[in-house]
Amino acid sequence: MKIAVDAMGGDNAPLVTVDGAVQAANDFGFQIALVGDRDLIYLELEKYKGYPKKQITIQHASEVVGMDEEAPTLAVRKKKNSSINVAINLVKNKNADAVVTAGNTGAAVASATLNLGLLPGIERPGIAIVLPALKGVSLLIDVGANIDPKPEHLLQYAIMSNIYSRYILRKANPRISLLNIGKEESKGTGSLKETYKLLSESGLNFIGNIEGRDIFSGRSDCIICGGFIGNVVLKVCESIAETTAAFFKRELRRSLLARMGALLCQPAFLALKKGTDYSECGGAPLLGIDGTCIVSHGGSTTKAIKNAIKVAGEFVNYKVNQHIVREISYGKC
Amino acid sequence: MKIAVDAMGGDNAPLVTVDGAVQAANDFGFQIALVGDRDLIYLELEKYKGYPKKQITIQHASEVVGMDEEAPTLAVRKKKNSSINVAINLVKNKNADAVVTAGNTGAAVASATLNLGLLPGIERPGIAIVLPALKGVSLLIDVGANIDPKPEHLLQYAIMSNIYSRYILRKANPRISLLNIGKEESKGTGSLKETYKLLSESGLNFIGNIEGRDIFSGRSDCIICGGFIGNVVLKVCESIAETTAAFFKRELRRSLLARMGALLCQPAFLALKKGTDYSECGGAPLLGIDGTCIVSHGGSTTKAIKNAIKVAGEFVNYKVNQHIVREISYGKC
Repeated sequence: MKIAVDAMGGDNAPLVTVDGAVQAANDFGFQIALVGDRDLIYLELEKYKGYPKKQITIQHASEVVGMDEEAPTLAVRKKKNSSINVAINLVKNKNADAVVTAGNTGAAVASATLNLGLLPGIERPGIAIVLPALKGVSLLIDVGANIDPKPEHLLQYAIMSNIYSRYILRKANPRISLLNIGKEESKGTGSLKETYKLLSESGLNFIGNIEGRDIFSGRSDCIICGGFIGNVVLKVCESIAETTAAFFKRELRRSLLARMGALLCQPAFLALKKGTDYSECGGAPLLGIDGTCIVSHGGSTTKAIKNAIKVAGEFVNYKVNQHIVREISYGKC
Repeated sequence: MKIAVDAMGGDNAPLVTVDGAVQAANDFGFQIALVGDRDLIYLELEKYKGYPKKQITIQHASEVVGMDEEAPTLAVRKKKNSSINVAINLVKNKNADAVVTAGNTGAAVASATLNLGLLPGIERPGIAIVLPALKGVSLLIDVGANIDPKPEHLLQYAIMSNIYSRYILRKANPRISLLNIGKEESKGTGSLKETYKLLSESGLNFIGNIEGRDIFSGRSDCIICGGFIGNVVLKVCESIAETTAAFFKRELRRSLLARMGALLCQPAFLALKKGTDYSECGGAPLLGIDGTCIVSHGGSTTKAIKNAIKVAGEFVNYKVNQHIVREISYGKC
């Protein structure tokens, strides 16, 4: 198993990407290709007394797509030698089995789609995010690859996320739901009503519509939605966590007693942070791509990178893409 | 000033609706018509040693539209004598100046639209929600009245929310933004790009696109979006607050020390709760209706009902609807 890690992707690259890669090499025995500026990567690797030199190689890439580049597709086309392109091309040329990146998500989608193409029968790629729920985790797809999906695209997302849930999240019979503004079949836009019908007839374990308030309840294993709504929801969730923490800290500053109290509750705060940190869940798979690509959060920690590498390995080992191709072709018959 | 209060609307009706109405009558000197089951309302009123009898009347309504009725428009048509219909008709027949309800939002929109109609020039009504932000509050419109809006509808929401922000939220020059998945003008669906253009040319203080992560930053005073996304975002926000609280309480149960700590931090928790409780902000105005209707949260407290009644009075006093009609007709010239 050889994983190409985009060493330059993410807010804390190449520090955490190299660190996560070294840990993954040690823990899982994978081969790792660190892709990016060779000097910077080498400087990071030199910090280790001993790292598994036989397992880790450096693949030089002279450019980087920035985290905040607003036109990532254009950036991917222009920066031919960017770390994400070089990493993806290692997979294309069979020099690696999978890519892990904590870089610009749009760039990862664009580079993977342009260079690897889509799986046979798949019409659009989708980004699936593993969300923490009150009980277990849920998968939300799509969170930004396809902002104006047709009902057929959403059906394909359901089929793909069902497979991912079964093989990677170890759920025997994932409950599939459609994100909507009410539970009744008649709710939502015409496109959503059509999707409801397709999902009902799909043979999947479709449990109907789910409302925004139920996203974190854990009632559904795979929540299907368009990329526009998924992206907004994801960013709103992130900002609520940040805003709440900022507000709470501001209040604590007003009182010494409250600060002492906060210290005593710290285990509960830390458990909350851990329980709601989706970067712990191994990153977001790009589904529908003819290859394996896991996108980690830009703010990923070492542990998150390591987990993403682990998931990338599982994605390959469990032949997730082959299952997708088979089930999509069944749907066509 | 006479306000019709839907006494049967909300999770804790008629207890909190009557209580809020009595407090509003005392504090603001308004006349209040309590609309609903006369016996139940009378039982509530009897609990008070003295309430302003000259200011409070009961208007009997024999039916109620339930909070969870999934087809509120149908319910409003069938239950002619429901409390929401009777309250709205008091406004229609000039027996009241405004309606306040904590009942089914869909029923309020349907009853107001059917019975009062829209303001001249307005194509669709919109529900605006006052959201707490890190600095001040922001208005989010629409959160469910219009799930598939045209660009022209979104422009009208911007015009209406601008006026509401100025007169009711006391903001001199509200910053208007469009909820999107990126800051650039080129982001989002075709419909959103067209809306961006309309807003740019509108003469409003349009500050461009805003992402999900900035909803709570306070950077924008009026955030414009379609009713589908607004509704999902609103419900996600509510559920995050509930899920986080549930998770935190579960963690606290594991440790006595942590529970003591939580007690010491209580002032900070309470401040957080108060700061993020949008029912404190006076409810959600239905904008575009030819009349005044404020919808409070179903879980409203007495204080929230009282605040909503106050806002309803201000809406009438500041002639918000007349300003809307004038500015919409300017836009048409």
